[in-house]
Amino acid sequence: MSLGPVLAHIDANRDGFVRRLIEYVRHPSISAQNIGIQEVSKLLVGMLKGLDLAAEVIPTHGHPMVFARWDGAPGKPTVLLYGHYDVQPPEPLEKWTSPPFEPTIRDGRIYARGVGDNKGQHFAQLMAIESHLAVHGRLPCNVVMLLEGEEEIGSPHCAEFVRANRDLLKADLVITADGPMHPSGVPIISFGVRGVAKFELRARTAKRDAHSGNFGNILPNAIWKLVHLLGTMKDATGTITIDGLHDNIVPPTDLDRAAVARLPLDLPALQEELGFTELDAPQDRGFYERLMFHPTLTINGFHGGYGGPGPKTVLPAEATVKCDIRLVEGQTPDDVLAKVAAHVRKHAPDVTFIPGGGMLPSRVPLDMPFAAKLREAVAVGQGAEPLIYPSLGGSLPDYVFTKILGTPAVQIPYANADEANHAPNENLTLDCFHKGIRTGAALLAHLGDGAT
Amino acid sequence: MSLGPVLAHIDANRDGFVRRLIEYVRHPSISAQNIGIQEVSKLLVGMLKGLDLAAEVIPTHGHPMVFARWDGAPGKPTVLLYGHYDVQPPEPLEKWTSPPFEPTIRDGRIYARGVGDNKGQHFAQLMAIESHLAVHGRLPCNVVMLLEGEEEIGSPHCAEFVRANRDLLKADLVITADGPMHPSGVPIISFGVRGVAKFELRARTAKRDAHSGNFGNILPNAIWKLVHLLGTMKDATGTITIDGLHDNIVPPTDLDRAAVARLPLDLPALQEELGFTELDAPQDRGFYERLMFHPTLTINGFHGGYGGPGPKTVLPAEATVKCDIRLVEGQTPDDVLAKVAAHVRKHAPDVTFIPGGGMLPSRVPLDMPFAAKLREAVAVGQGAEPLIYPSLGGSLPDYVFTKILGTPAVQIPYANADEANHAPNENLTLDCFHKGIRTGAALLAHLGDGAT
Repeated sequence: MSLGPVLAHIDANRDGFVRRLIEYVRHPSISAQNIGIQEVSKLLVGMLKGLDLAAEVIPTHGHPMVFARWDGAPGKPTVLLYGHYDVQPPEPLEKWTSPPFEPTIRDGRIYARGVGDNKGQHFAQLMAIESHLAVHGRLPCNVVMLLEGEEEIGSPHCAEFVRANRDLLKADLVITADGPMHPSGVPIISFGVRGVAKFELRARTAKRDAHSGNFGNILPNAIWKLVHLLGTMKDATGTITIDGLHDNIVPPTDLDRAAVARLPLDLPALQEELGFTELDAPQDRGFYERLMFHPTLTINGFHGGYGGPGPKTVLPAEATVKCDIRLVEGQTPDDVLAKVAAHVRKHAPDVTFIPGGGMLPSRVPLDMPFAAKLREAVAVGQGAEPLIYPSLGGSLPDYVFTKILGTPAVQIPYANADEANHAPNENLTLDCFHKGIRTGAALLAHLGDGAT
Repeated sequence: MSLGPVLAHIDANRDGFVRRLIEYVRHPSISAQNIGIQEVSKLLVGMLKGLDLAAEVIPTHGHPMVFARWDGAPGKPTVLLYGHYDVQPPEPLEKWTSPPFEPTIRDGRIYARGVGDNKGQHFAQLMAIESHLAVHGRLPCNVVMLLEGEEEIGSPHCAEFVRANRDLLKADLVITADGPMHPSGVPIISFGVRGVAKFELRARTAKRDAHSGNFGNILPNAIWKLVHLLGTMKDATGTITIDGLHDNIVPPTDLDRAAVARLPLDLPALQEELGFTELDAPQDRGFYERLMFHPTLTINGFHGGYGGPGPKTVLPAEATVKCDIRLVEGQTPDDVLAKVAAHVRKHAPDVTFIPGGGMLPSRVPLDMPFAAKLREAVAVGQGAEPLIYPSLGGSLPDYVFTKILGTPAVQIPYANADEANHAPNENLTLDCFHKGIRTGAALLAHLGDGAT
């Protein structure tokens, strides 16, 4: 089966695909606010059935999964295409140039909530499938499509669903098209993701706030309590000092290190874009090593006491800190949260530790089967050799495939680096969308060829 | 001049004085919101002229001073009675049982904004003056009355006013009736106040917040920056570790220590009331020593990053901390703020230090002239021997008298300990108000006798 005519079909239908994407992203599907989830899951099943795939909405204990299958290529590999049809809340609305659910094309980009994360990317996969079927009447390999409705709220039921549907999800490889390409526009194949573990710390030192003059030095201060506790968790050199947190970390392989050494970096451009002068402490590690091979301890928010204009001489009785820890291969949310809990019990037993959600990390070997075919396909689809990432810095629920099903999983992002996902004015360039469809088609073709 | 008939007059007119106080506190005079200031300053001048005092409104670069004088006792001491006619904002309104400017009597208390802090207390002085004049046609000593309109916003123009009006304010002693008595109901004479110095710390580590996965370990975190800076300012043992901050502190005298040793303390009751288990660190100092002889470093507020419900995996680019330092005798706001600034420059040069307002501390010797007469007068007026405080924990602008004019200044509070000043349901018991008028009358009488 030849890829050429399929790519030609994709090029010929470029504008029509854009129009259909715009129709799709017009529908809100905000998981955190439970808006439009049912409608969009049904809409997707309709689209998938329209392509002649067996498709259905499968309920979970949360928002439903959209599942589809094409298995007309016996003997060929099966690829599971994972994506998510839910989107982030669009707020703050006033910061959008055009309304988030009225998709608008400006300067070669479609602006709409979800157009990059993740609707435009899995819709590109759909159009790739459609194009193969239109040209050849069949696909080069077997396809399973799994589109989640809760990715933006941490995939709370994804693992449970995968455990309960092992047979349904049997595949040789999982590909997720999500996230951005490299800022230079070069494509990426990532063989892993960091995990994440979230928690809150709450201090309450008295029944009520008090006057800092009448009670200063008498009443303990909830903010100082958390400041000193946090100081025991990560020191001023940037070293995380929670006992046992680094236990079990799987170090990068020689292949991983070699891949990282080849990655380009334009640090001055990033510093200019984000307006920072110095990389975060500690300084004894490379840029990509920081993102791929080291856990973080990020304070997401710290709130206590007076925050209005001017001074207020108050002694605050309560304060809250929210944190997340990005996990690297070998760490688990359960173990890490247990270690944080033990640390808090030891250093500030009167502070309340509230564990939040978590997600395991995932990493597959860079020399896995299909690795070479993936590189070739991406090079054809995107017109540029992909960068090989041992891991992304962010978290996606790949572990459900790698750790629960034992299926290798990779990320092949289609979006532009400035897609502004999770932010106002989310966008996808028309070029990225088009190349995404071509890449999707090339991936199916190369994976199919690989097994002949 | 006999005090007995004056006290009898006060007792006989008890209900009438309450009615007149209610009429007074009905008028809002909220300095922070510039509400009612002009009206109430004029109302006061009218009242004072009605007592046959020479009274006037004197403009400042902020809200005006109300000034009055009675100098018909040549050869007798002159006492300056300081108070303030401005009140705190009444918000949150929904927490008031009766509206803040519709004074209401319930269970032996008048509830109204400002009734305790400070209108009820300086109005008691006025009624004491009126009663002396009604009975004897003259006062036992000379009186200067100074009522400020900016105390609740930190007395920003008080020092300037005092410097420019040294002759007008010439006196032998300053008495301020403000703040609460001891929780046991026993009266207090305080010979000092702590000062205060306020500042903000602002960290900005990037142009915008970022994704904690894509940028964790890359971008510095503004909250961590402030947490680590704060950790260098006060350690986990509670010791303030800002270089030079304790320089110049004047240690308590033997008299101060002896006075503190005599002060009663019901720590379990306070712990029960405020819901705390352990005094703030460090533990190597007594309860009153903490409030009178040691500076504080209170974090008034810490705000940065996400504070809404649930988690948000954000890496915050900005955070703000507000602090105040209560100063003890020998410290000055200028010197202390300079030392904090130097500390910040040394430990976190990229954090912005913003000095706020300040106020010098004040302390006069416990064996000052008039000390014995003040004790006798308070004992007569209140019917109980006063406790002798070397200092209050809070701050009042006494330094303008002690340090600019060289006039000794003391605090003699008339309000109940649960007056809820600065809070909803501010109140003054009818008993405290009545005893305040009696005490005001006794003070004038004893000071007058003392100079004969």
